[in-house]
This record gives sequence, C-alpha cells and structure tokens, in this order.
Amino acid sequence: MAVILQNLGYEVELVTVNFGVYPSWRPAAESALNLGYPHRILEAGEKLLEEAVELILDDGYPNNGLNYLHHQVLHQVAQEYPVIADGTRRDDRTPKLDINQIRSLEDSENVQYLNLTGFGHKTIGDLSRKLFKIKKELTTTDNNSDYEIEVRHLIDELRGDGTASHIFPEHVQSRVIGWRENE
Amino acid sequence: MAVILQNLGYEVELVTVNFGVYPSWRPAAESALNLGYPHRILEAGEKLLEEAVELILDDGYPNNGLNYLHHQVLHQVAQEYPVIADGTRRDDRTPKLDINQIRSLEDSENVQYLNLTGFGHKTIGDLSRKLFKIKKELTTTDNNSDYEIEVRHLIDELRGDGTASHIFPEHVQSRVIGWRENE
Repeated sequence: MAVILQNLGYEVELVTVNFGVYPSWRPAAESALNLGYPHRILEAGEKLLEEAVELILDDGYPNNGLNYLHHQVLHQVAQEYPVIADGTRRDDRTPKLDINQIRSLEDSENVQYLNLTGFGHKTIGDLSRKLFKIKKELTTTDNNSDYEIEVRHLIDELRGDGTASHIFPEHVQSRVIGWRENE
Repeated sequence: MAVILQNLGYEVELVTVNFGVYPSWRPAAESALNLGYPHRILEAGEKLLEEAVELILDDGYPNNGLNYLHHQVLHQVAQEYPVIADGTRRDDRTPKLDINQIRSLEDSENVQYLNLTGFGHKTIGDLSRKLFKIKKELTTTDNNSDYEIEVRHLIDELRGDGTASHIFPEHVQSRVIGWRENE
C-alpha cells in the first residue's frame, strides 16, 4: 500500500501503533528503515488493549478483539493525517473494516481511508516477491509488529504464561527486510 | 487502475469490449491514445448484449443486466491475460463483482482479478484531478464507452427510439482526455 501511494505522488509515513506493554514496534521500524520510509510510533494507550484482551478472552478467539482494536486505532490515526491506509487485502478476514465502518470512519473523522481490498493474495504475493526481499519465518515476539504481539503479552501477564498460545495458533509469516536489489 | 499497475511494473494493455451494435469503443481508444497506453477492442458478440438487454427490459432498470454483462465479459477477457483489472471503485454499485464471483472467476479461469475497491470516490477524484486532464460533460453516444451506450442502442432498436432514456437517466461524466501537463 505504501509503494502504491508513493508511486501515485502521496508523501508516505508508516505508522505503527503501540500500547505500552511491549516494544513490538521494533520489527516494523526496522523494515521501514530498510525501505527508506519515515516511520512513526503512535502511542494508543493500554486501556484500549485491555478492552480488546477482555473481548478476546470472553470469545476464546481473537477476531472480534483484533477488529475492535484496529477500528479504534484507525480513529486515532485519523486525527493526524488527511489520508490513512492499511494493508488489509481482499482475502484477509481480520482485522478488516466493513463498508459501513469505513464510511463512518471517513465521515466522522473527515479523512480518506484506503486499503488493499482490490488485491487478492496471489497478486500481493507476486508483487511482494518482485519488490521486496522477504524473510519467511515462524512468528516470534521479536520479528513481528502485529497487534497480536502485545495482545499475547497482556494475556500471558493476566492469565499466566502460555495462555495466549491456546488462542493464537503458531504461524509462519513473510517479513519485508528490504528492496529487491534489481529495483 | 492502469496507472497503479504500470507503476508497479506490470505491462498494461487497455481493453474495451464491443458487441458489434455501435462503435462505442472510440472515446476509450482516444483516451488510451492520449495517455500513451496500448488499447485493444475485444469483440464479445451481440448475443451477450441481447441477453443483458432482455434482463434490463424485464427488470425496468439496468443494474442486473450491466452486472451480468460485466461478469461475462471478464470471463472472456480472462482467456487472454494472466492478470485482469477493472476500475470499479469502493462506492460504485454497478457493475461490480461480489467476493464469490471474484473467487469463482479467478479459480475457473486461472487468472488474477484486481479492482479499485480499496479506494473511495473522494480519493479517486483527488487522484484523477492530479494525474489527468479531465472533461466534465453530459454523457452522449459519442463521448462514452460504457456498456450503457450499446445497451441503449439495442433497446432503442428493439423498442423504438427514446425507450432507453426511460431506463437510463441523463448524467454528467468525467472523461480523461490526457495527462496533466505538470506530470
């Protein structure tokens, strides 16, 4: 999404939200640095994370909590920028705003919101491999900046180490570590 | 969509479908020429147009017929390209593929399909004004290459001149006539 917007002439700043529980913004900051994009950490407050964790523990699965978090975070980010965008893709399920949430976000915050809903996973995969150096690896606390990392930290803090691993399955991620050299 | 894809490194060819009833591809060919994109006219056959017109006359409004046309046309275009895209935007209602139609198109034709569903009308408006010279004018038979033009022709042919104007309201369009000079 950042590449698309910069190509179209937007001045791009990458934003990673942090709730003050764990410095999970570090891998995102490293990717941004390697790509040459300005990067900013937006402190969103631990209260919001606590509300999301409560939802997730009640549900026993993360989807609603992560959606809630993303929705609230976008409203905060919208205070600072006229155009905001995330990388949610057509085939992603969580976090994702539905059309009514998008319109309400745009109208209430007087902002434009964009995402990658027009692009499917195959296309994103092709483009990522063409544009970026990518590292495939098992997600750990120190190589991922998703909401999940701080959510897991807070859950383990509240309910004891290992609780979060029952809610979040182990998974392999693709992390952008720089531009492909031929670009 | 063409600008986005070309910026990302795709080799772009613009495609206008024609059903053989009226040379409505001309304004699209002119826009493509002025922008420097290769442009191709794909003959889709009058039978398909007849089916759509039948639907539209039965319904008394164009939405289902235009969606049917677009869906069928995309399956034809998919025979010729590994990646196909249209400019349908988040706030458009017709023509538009739903997520199930998109997945079925991609799977059955072994193609990647992209659109502008991640972009709202305000963003598209800003980008269009920034990138293109645009002409705002009332839609006529000779300045528009939408499906609507040939649909109207066939309806008036079948039911008498003027019938189509009860189904399609008059509207003002924005037509791309070239790049903005400072680009």
